[in-house]
Amino acid sequence: MVTLDEMSAEVRAEVARVRDLVARLHAELPRWDLVVWTAGNVSQRVRVHDGEDLFVIKPSGVTYDELTPESMVVCTLDGELVDGTRAPSSDTAAHAYVYRHMPEVGGVVHTHSTYATAWAARGEEIPCVLTMMADEFGGPVPIGPFALIGDDSIGRGIVETLTGSRSPAVLMRNHGPFTIGKDATTAVKAAVMVEEVARTIHVARQLGEPVPIDQNAIDSLYARYQNVYGQPAPAQR
Amino acid sequence: MVTLDEMSAEVRAEVARVRDLVARLHAELPRWDLVVWTAGNVSQRVRVHDGEDLFVIKPSGVTYDELTPESMVVCTLDGELVDGTRAPSSDTAAHAYVYRHMPEVGGVVHTHSTYATAWAARGEEIPCVLTMMADEFGGPVPIGPFALIGDDSIGRGIVETLTGSRSPAVLMRNHGPFTIGKDATTAVKAAVMVEEVARTIHVARQLGEPVPIDQNAIDSLYARYQNVYGQPAPAQR
Amino acid sequence: MVTLDEMSAEVRAEVARVRDLVARLHAELPRWDLVVWTAGNVSQRVRVHDGEDLFVIKPSGVTYDELTPESMVVCTLDGELVDGTRAPSSDTAAHAYVYRHMPEVGGVVHTHSTYATAWAARGEEIPCVLTMMADEFGGPVPIGPFALIGDDSIGRGIVETLTGSRSPAVLMRNHGPFTIGKDATTAVKAAVMVEEVARTIHVARQLGEPVPIDQNAIDSLYARYQNVYGQPAPAQR
Amino acid sequence: MVTLDEMSAEVRAEVARVRDLVARLHAELPRWDLVVWTAGNVSQRVRVHDGEDLFVIKPSGVTYDELTPESMVVCTLDGELVDGTRAPSSDTAAHAYVYRHMPEVGGVVHTHSTYATAWAARGEEIPCVLTMMADEFGGPVPIGPFALIGDDSIGRGIVETLTGSRSPAVLMRNHGPFTIGKDATTAVKAAVMVEEVARTIHVARQLGEPVPIDQNAIDSLYARYQNVYGQPAPAQR
Repeated sequence: MVTLDEMSAEVRAEVARVRDLVARLHAELPRWDLVVWTAGNVSQRVRVHDGEDLFVIKPSGVTYDELTPESMVVCTLDGELVDGTRAPSSDTAAHAYVYRHMPEVGGVVHTHSTYATAWAARGEEIPCVLTMMADEFGGPVPIGPFALIGDDSIGRGIVETLTGSRSPAVLMRNHGPFTIGKDATTAVKAAVMVEEVARTIHVARQLGEPVPIDQNAIDSLYARYQNVYGQPAPAQR
Repeated sequence: MVTLDEMSAEVRAEVARVRDLVARLHAELPRWDLVVWTAGNVSQRVRVHDGEDLFVIKPSGVTYDELTPESMVVCTLDGELVDGTRAPSSDTAAHAYVYRHMPEVGGVVHTHSTYATAWAARGEEIPCVLTMMADEFGGPVPIGPFALIGDDSIGRGIVETLTGSRSPAVLMRNHGPFTIGKDATTAVKAAVMVEEVARTIHVARQLGEPVPIDQNAIDSLYARYQNVYGQPAPAQR
Repeated sequence: MVTLDEMSAEVRAEVARVRDLVARLHAELPRWDLVVWTAGNVSQRVRVHDGEDLFVIKPSGVTYDELTPESMVVCTLDGELVDGTRAPSSDTAAHAYVYRHMPEVGGVVHTHSTYATAWAARGEEIPCVLTMMADEFGGPVPIGPFALIGDDSIGRGIVETLTGSRSPAVLMRNHGPFTIGKDATTAVKAAVMVEEVARTIHVARQLGEPVPIDQNAIDSLYARYQNVYGQPAPAQR
Repeated sequence: MVTLDEMSAEVRAEVARVRDLVARLHAELPRWDLVVWTAGNVSQRVRVHDGEDLFVIKPSGVTYDELTPESMVVCTLDGELVDGTRAPSSDTAAHAYVYRHMPEVGGVVHTHSTYATAWAARGEEIPCVLTMMADEFGGPVPIGPFALIGDDSIGRGIVETLTGSRSPAVLMRNHGPFTIGKDATTAVKAAVMVEEVARTIHVARQLGEPVPIDQNAIDSLYARYQNVYGQPAPAQR
């Protein structure tokens, strides 16, 4: 297997930059109350010219106080460790599957954030009843299948659910949200926003039914937001 | 279009003071859990003697860690950029509309705070069943119309709902709260208080019906609070 | 009216000590999420040998960032300002009434903490279904009457409800909790604990009915806790 | 009774190390919102070669700001104070009972965390409907009996409920969670996780019924997690 030392200076510099970014982005997860203890992980793809892409991900079981750029691990898109002194996150196979099958995706995030996970536990998609949700998600947040860890089931469930969907977030049943984006920052934003809409719409429904938003209005809000903000949807939809 | 450099030293000094204030007030929004990521915005009018008023507002898509006085942008009451290196908030047109049509308003705040937005999603006004709500709002917090971003619909909905109302807050349907005040500090306080009463009354109603407060008592509390605290209601009511 | 300068060195030293304590205790209110903005207030009695007692309380409308020992105000038990450059809290009359009518009380706290205020909005006492509640409150937390600010109604409602009750907390209807203690620290603890039990029992009841605790067990827990911890109940019960 | 000074240098060094660890771990309780004021306690066993084990626990009624390694107290497994200047936590007898009867347990934690305590108030076990719960708990979190403080009732209830259970957490009825682990860090993690699953499943059930997970899938997730992470279950199951 290739090692980082054998790669070009350009790749090594990009890996270093992404390690720093991914380490810093992990701090956003406890900041917005999306994770407890060591749960949750962020990764970003490293595009390699004339070679196989890599990605940088959190090591397994490390607390949020210990996350440094050096502790981040580097993997191939098959999930094999290329560089790093710790074992990669136990969700590495799912991240790797997404990068292999969705070439436009540059960042993946997984959390067990409370409200998104509660919708996932009921296997119920989040309806699009807020303008901010129309902006960011362009419709409901879909439910992915129940899948056990250990093979490609989780990755496949994410890819099958998000392909052809406007939503950058999927709620894996009985498990929790996975989000994608053109880079890790965008995927972290989607993780923050899916919890925000999951919580707000949960609270709204506790005392009655939210007023629906017309599909035309949803389409209009989504189109405007994606253009004005210049952020193409992660899966080039 | 006029630039800041062409204005009097007095106006430039006031703009600098307001930039500093508005930058600092943005820190109150995450502090009281009213916003996530880059959502939410605060603005304050700059009154210009012998000329057109201006207002200072947050730039678009900037995180709460990056907000400095220099990054704040200055606009005319038509929402045109007068000074600043970034694009103004996408809610600038709504703020501008309010300043044009409510001359007594000196500050505007918009958030997607969870509980206020949940009432907005159901299109249900918040009933006045707490003494602190009678103090601050003088009655229920009203619902504004559903309005798309992109023209004056949001601004018009705010102005039409709040004109003649005691409440400094309106819940725009399926969207979230906008608050007004004689200055930005007062409008931020109203944004904090509308979430506080939205949350407390939501929680109260989860297990039954709150006891109503007599209209006479509401009127008495409101009159006393507005006088004792010497804060004239924003719309000169 | 007497001024602080005319009092003995001993009283002046005690006032200085209590000012420092009361300023520091105010920081506990936002720390435990009991207040927003400038809401809430803590006071402590200053016992004066051979003279009239005083108490130290928060000034009106000052934010939690600005609270210093110097900004605290000193009042007589009639609520008249003795020392301080700001107007006392608008709840000063209620604190003063409690100190005049409950000589064993040395500290009073008022907040609008969310869950306690929600029970107050429904006018429903909090049932004693947790061992920690039996320890601290010895039974249910009672509801006080609806009372307008401006005369002695609030203070009288507090005193009438807490006299003969084990509970150091009363939920004033449609208003919020007031707590008492042998000193301000004990009253702050009661304010923290009343929100804790209000929240936990609210959550428990959202999905069914809590199991009752036998009165004998409540009595036993209360007796043990009050003795072991050596803290006589505020009203010498 | 033996004193710390009479023990070997090795034991004294280990006690010093554990005092430091237990003091630091207490900071995790307020960090993850598991406790208010002085509630909650963490202990860790000190294994003594050729002698009786000891354990280190928090002193009674000390605030989370005051917790230093020196303030931690050292007890025998009968709950007798061996070293320390303060009285041990009032839950010391329960911790001691667990250490006496579960030799494989090296750490015990007790909190009144809101959602776990709410399930305890209803006397209702938490069903295993999340993959993270299958990983960590291997099934439901069980309810322990109602027990008064003052004798071995609480300790006996913990031991009887957790013996033969996969769960490292028990919800003592009308009281709150106790958790165990091979050391204090593991027991603190269990305290964080029991609140996490209690909250998420509470929220899920507020709007319907979670989808059950097959027992086979629960067994598979639990077996994998306990092996991959190399953490033998606390009770040597």
